Amino acid sequence: QINSGRLWETLHETCRWGAANRYGEKPTDTGMSRLTLSDDDARVRRWFATEIEKLGGTLTVDQMGNMFARRAGKLGSPAPMTAMGSHLDTQPRGGRYDDILGVVAALEVLRTLHETGFKTNYDVGVVNWTNEEGARFPKSMSSSGVWAGAIPVENAWNLSDIHDPSVTLRSELERHGFLGETACSSDPNTGYPLGAHFELHIEQGPILQETSRSLGAVIGAQGYRWLTSTVTGRDAHTGTTPFSARQDPLLAASKMIVASNAAAQRHGALASTGVIRIPSDASTNTVVSQVAFTLDIRHPEDDVVHTVQKECLDEFHRIASEDGKGVGFTWTLDTDSPAVKFHEDAVGAVKCAAELRVGTNKWMEITSGAGHDSVYANRHCPTAMIFVPCQDGVSHHPTEYCKPEDCALGTQALLESKSGIMSS
Amino acid sequence: QINSGRLWETLHETCRWGAANRYGEKPTDTGMSRLTLSDDDARVRRWFATEIEKLGGTLTVDQMGNMFARRAGKLGSPAPMTAMGSHLDTQPRGGRYDDILGVVAALEVLRTLHETGFKTNYDVGVVNWTNEEGARFPKSMSSSGVWAGAIPVENAWNLSDIHDPSVTLRSELERHGFLGETACSSDPNTGYPLGAHFELHIEQGPILQETSRSLGAVIGAQGYRWLTSTVTGRDAHTGTTPFSARQDPLLAASKMIVASNAAAQRHGALASTGVIRIPSDASTNTVVSQVAFTLDIRHPEDDVVHTVQKECLDEFHRIASEDGKGVGFTWTLDTDSPAVKFHEDAVGAVKCAAELRVGTNKWMEITSGAGHDSVYANRHCPTAMIFVPCQDGVSHHPTEYCKPEDCALGTQALLESKSGIMSS
Ligand SMILES: NC(=O)NCCC(=O)O
Ligand SMILES: NC(=O)NCCC(=O)O
Repeated sequence: QINSGRLWETLHETCRWGAANRYGEKPTDTGMSRLTLSDDDARVRRWFATEIEKLGGTLTVDQMGNMFARRAGKLGSPAPMTAMGSHLDTQPRGGRYDDILGVVAALEVLRTLHETGFKTNYDVGVVNWTNEEGARFPKSMSSSGVWAGAIPVENAWNLSDIHDPSVTLRSELERHGFLGETACSSDPNTGYPLGAHFELHIEQGPILQETSRSLGAVIGAQGYRWLTSTVTGRDAHTGTTPFSARQDPLLAASKMIVASNAAAQRHGALASTGVIRIPSDASTNTVVSQVAFTLDIRHPEDDVVHTVQKECLDEFHRIASEDGKGVGFTWTLDTDSPAVKFHEDAVGAVKCAAELRVGTNKWMEITSGAGHDSVYANRHCPTAMIFVPCQDGVSHHPTEYCKPEDCALGTQALLESKSGIMSS
Repeated sequence: QINSGRLWETLHETCRWGAANRYGEKPTDTGMSRLTLSDDDARVRRWFATEIEKLGGTLTVDQMGNMFARRAGKLGSPAPMTAMGSHLDTQPRGGRYDDILGVVAALEVLRTLHETGFKTNYDVGVVNWTNEEGARFPKSMSSSGVWAGAIPVENAWNLSDIHDPSVTLRSELERHGFLGETACSSDPNTGYPLGAHFELHIEQGPILQETSRSLGAVIGAQGYRWLTSTVTGRDAHTGTTPFSARQDPLLAASKMIVASNAAAQRHGALASTGVIRIPSDASTNTVVSQVAFTLDIRHPEDDVVHTVQKECLDEFHRIASEDGKGVGFTWTLDTDSPAVKFHEDAVGAVKCAAELRVGTNKWMEITSGAGHDSVYANRHCPTAMIFVPCQDGVSHHPTEYCKPEDCALGTQALLESKSGIMSS
């Protein structure tokens, strides 16, 4: 039985590194801004390492800064460990639960085992994956992606800070001393293989709350792709340059953003622009020279994601030559996360734990709208996730909230899912 | 007869303060980035003061940092001086001519008078107006506007840097020692009245070049208004938040920018967005919380400017409630520069000078697409402008260019226009 008070306290204790955007009076009424490999992220990583040490665990850091904490089982480590994994990085205007809860819950499971002196047969452990959010280095789940062999390590190392191109993910790993020597791979010879991977997460949507469920057994995640578009024009005086003589990238980018929304609507998909960037020397009476904007396209079926992407790009090319003297248009694919179905055995273990804990009416199967490190972990070991409700489905917002009893219930289900698969 | 070599050399000499955005190999193949009251602007101001001193002129700095340089006439200053005025500030990605040429040409006229020992009856002088561009402090011609009584001095002082709200125009005046004591006003008792105002400027459009004219007698300027719109939404996860639950200010702002362009096209007007701003903590997979964007609406008739503004705002309000849960929308009017017709006598003096200099086929009457300090000067003294061609109409761009012979011709016409009005 996990200790729900300790869980809650630890969760919020770790939020002292990165607390931001206060919205209420209670000490915990703030959001979080703990971007990957920021100073605060480095602090919470060092805290995590210390806590693992206190429990007698061993810590391995790989080339991507992924932190693998291991608690030895009775049989002396003949097999890869069963992992509970998630991430301690947050959005710049994120909350206190996505997915600090997942790592702290996993730590609580280890603490519970330690306290009760319980010895598993095989090794169990916790993974803190680097840069899950993709907020600072705009490729989400980049380090579980490298681990899974889906992203070349050089690509991930070379990701640059979305707001400061002079800083790379690798330079930040080095600065903080988190560039480990173990290969970032599931290869048993060079890397760090896992036997299974469980992840507790807030739902980040409203379905559990709306249907009065307290647990979700996540059967998979929708697919998504991130594109960055760069539209190039030419500085010109806004008062003396007729429309016919202009190359206006901001007008074109605006049309593109509107068109991407329409394309997504046509297909019941999502398409969203979170970031638009212009040079810092823009001015009111000058047509700007360049605009870059992100696009995030999602749908449970990969085919639909691809169709929406194609329709967007066709439209973007058309728009690029529509006004004045036209604009330049280029794009890159930053994140490609196909739809995934989690492993049957792992999902089965979560379902059993949920059934046991809350009974048939209080849990449901659910598909994740967001990406998670489990999506990549699933490529190399049985993987599943547990969702707990979050208030009004609010996430990636400072007021993101998960009740203490739901945090505790999810953590207990995490412990039991892990035990389920280990004994099967 | 002005000294064209000295003019050209002085023009480019002053560009050492703020040269930026090199585009070619010659030393002068750069643009300029000399934002109002930046360190470089302060340097060129001090240079200007020194040059005036060398000519035995007297300098007065008013509350807005406007610099009035005066050369005494034979009659001992019984009347306001006849001024040649313009500005030394530039766009952040501007060129070397707008309107450094205007101030340097005026100085060249004083130098010519000085050198030849020519004594005018009445006083003549040069004005360097502060923050003409409105690029850093987004109200164009703000200091000639205060001088003319069109803008309260407090409003202008409180303008904050478009990219750094902690810095105001007044705090920068103080920092550089350009907060003068003379009232910024044309009032003869407290301020600095002018007898007439002439301004030499590059056309910033293609008409003179296309019609093979070398001089334009500017009869007026079109009207324009600058608005800043702020659209407010709510951070939300781009993967888990359905469109129906969103408040997406970037989608709404994009629609508004597209709609403003359409409204302007309907009326043969111009509407342009040069700056769009989102919080620095935006991220790819989060709907952003707030977007601000500028709008610059222009037309030779004030009625049309007002109609386009009204149609834009109507559309903006409609768009604000169109998608998801709607967004908040507010706007401010930042610059209001009605259309203007310059004073007949002053325009007449320019026409005579042009006719004399280049003959009937080589000059034309022209209306300015851009705003100028002359627009405000005209409210309190006979005012006119002289345009010289600029290459391909390019302005507010690093490659902006005006041929040495056109700079010289314009300067000579400036001298003769001024003399024309003084003897009339
Ligand atoms: N869970 C979560 O917010 N992950 C970030 C990647 C995504 O945008 O889905
Ligand atoms: N001449 C000039 O570019 N003035 C700046 C004000 C405007 O945008 O028209």
